[in-house]
Amino acid sequence: MIERIAILGTGLLGTSVGLALRAAGYRGSIVGWNRGAEGAQTALAARAIDSIATDALQAARESQVVLLAVPIYATLDFMEKLSGVLGSEHLVTDVGSTKGQITEAAGRLFNTPERAAFLPGHPMAGKERGGAALGDAELFRGAVWLFTDDPTWQRSPHSSELVKGWREWVEAMGSKTLDLDPARHDELVAWVSHLPQFVATALSALLQDEVGDAPELKDVGGRALREMTRLGASPYSMWRDIALTNTEAVQVTLQALEQRLAHLRENLRMPELRSEFEQANRFRRE
Amino acid sequence: MIERIAILGTGLLGTSVGLALRAAGYRGSIVGWNRGAEGAQTALAARAIDSIATDALQAARESQVVLLAVPIYATLDFMEKLSGVLGSEHLVTDVGSTKGQITEAAGRLFNTPERAAFLPGHPMAGKERGGAALGDAELFRGAVWLFTDDPTWQRSPHSSELVKGWREWVEAMGSKTLDLDPARHDELVAWVSHLPQFVATALSALLQDEVGDAPELKDVGGRALREMTRLGASPYSMWRDIALTNTEAVQVTLQALEQRLAHLRENLRMPELRSEFEQANRFRRE
Repeated sequence: MIERIAILGTGLLGTSVGLALRAAGYRGSIVGWNRGAEGAQTALAARAIDSIATDALQAARESQVVLLAVPIYATLDFMEKLSGVLGSEHLVTDVGSTKGQITEAAGRLFNTPERAAFLPGHPMAGKERGGAALGDAELFRGAVWLFTDDPTWQRSPHSSELVKGWREWVEAMGSKTLDLDPARHDELVAWVSHLPQFVATALSALLQDEVGDAPELKDVGGRALREMTRLGASPYSMWRDIALTNTEAVQVTLQALEQRLAHLRENLRMPELRSEFEQANRFRRE
Repeated sequence: MIERIAILGTGLLGTSVGLALRAAGYRGSIVGWNRGAEGAQTALAARAIDSIATDALQAARESQVVLLAVPIYATLDFMEKLSGVLGSEHLVTDVGSTKGQITEAAGRLFNTPERAAFLPGHPMAGKERGGAALGDAELFRGAVWLFTDDPTWQRSPHSSELVKGWREWVEAMGSKTLDLDPARHDELVAWVSHLPQFVATALSALLQDEVGDAPELKDVGGRALREMTRLGASPYSMWRDIALTNTEAVQVTLQALEQRLAHLRENLRMPELRSEFEQANRFRRE
């Protein structure tokens, strides 16, 4: 029943969704909008989208499903604008990495019987670099696609059907869906996604200070070092909005790791080191 | 000119050396000794060794090159025993991950014109799990094989030739050799190898405490989380000796990372976060 989709933001995720929808057999139209013309052209050339829109709001109005695939603050801006121009015949969904502020805005601006539905979504997939050129039809295969939908929202029957239809396309793209409370979502991703990123950034920055002037020494670390610093390539522009919209949860995880590292440092010559290795082994085993 | 090699310790590294020597065209004999019978049998079945020795010291005496591929303290024990039974017609070398104590012992117990030569070595290759069954002829390809040889050591011409010959085999196995001062070695590997391991251990142990009781949530982290915690599977038995023989250097790196994480935590909403990401990006770019 979904036949017209607008993808606002044809970066890595937006382009990958277009490609994955086509690979999964979607035959309707896909219109793309992007802030920079080059990203839209790349997505078009890759056939992730059928056409390029110059007016994002008009493209949204002419679609049934609007996917916001832009940074978090840009998503919040679009939500303000779209709530005034869309109605109960539309579904808006997103791919933002934090869900507290977006879900709050979704309840405030959408999800009444007269208004458009908004389904807050977050595919746990990505690459350390962004951009339409890296778009990948297989990006979501085997990944978890989180939703922070609110069961108390009252939607029109039509937009409820669109929500159901979009969830089916997400599964058709190869993802496993999981529903979480938005606060629990932000706390969880702080542990399993944001903390690993910020650790890789801190470790890479520290190593650049310590051995960065001797490139031959980086080779010494081998595969283990490459793996532990791969996320060090992630750009600030992708992570700034996450740091700003999930600050407290991320701070809790960083402080916990600082304490854990201090504990390990103080026990390098003690039996407690064995317990830490065994607990770490458990994480990988289960 | 090297025709008889003894590998003492047929775990992952010892077995891989046997396989890599054969793959590189070595046609002499390889005798293996292992503390546990099963590891020796596995290495023999894989043709990493030609025969199993029951007496390690006798196998060493009957070889030209003795490779110690056992944990660091076991290496130090073997060095004490071997120095009394070998002479200037032998070379002993090792694969230990820290080189300060081993190089000190090499100067004290070997490397006079009358005694055997000892070449302290450290291939920067491994897997997060050990054992002969994981032995791999390609393990050393593209890796850096570090040496902490001392140019002031006076060796017999014969054992000097064996040192030269062993270095050639290391290169034939696909490794790039690099010579370092032992103190500089231990400081460098603390940064590029030990710190990444202890971070992965601390992160994995912390996450086991936080989300370990909900296995479905581990999937949420996806590839990035798997990569950042893969080394969490490393066993304590492999790392205990490293922690004990490189304690101070590792403590310096851990404390530096703790401070870096605290700095990042305090600046999540500040422009300093951009500088950290840019410095991390530099590490991956160069």
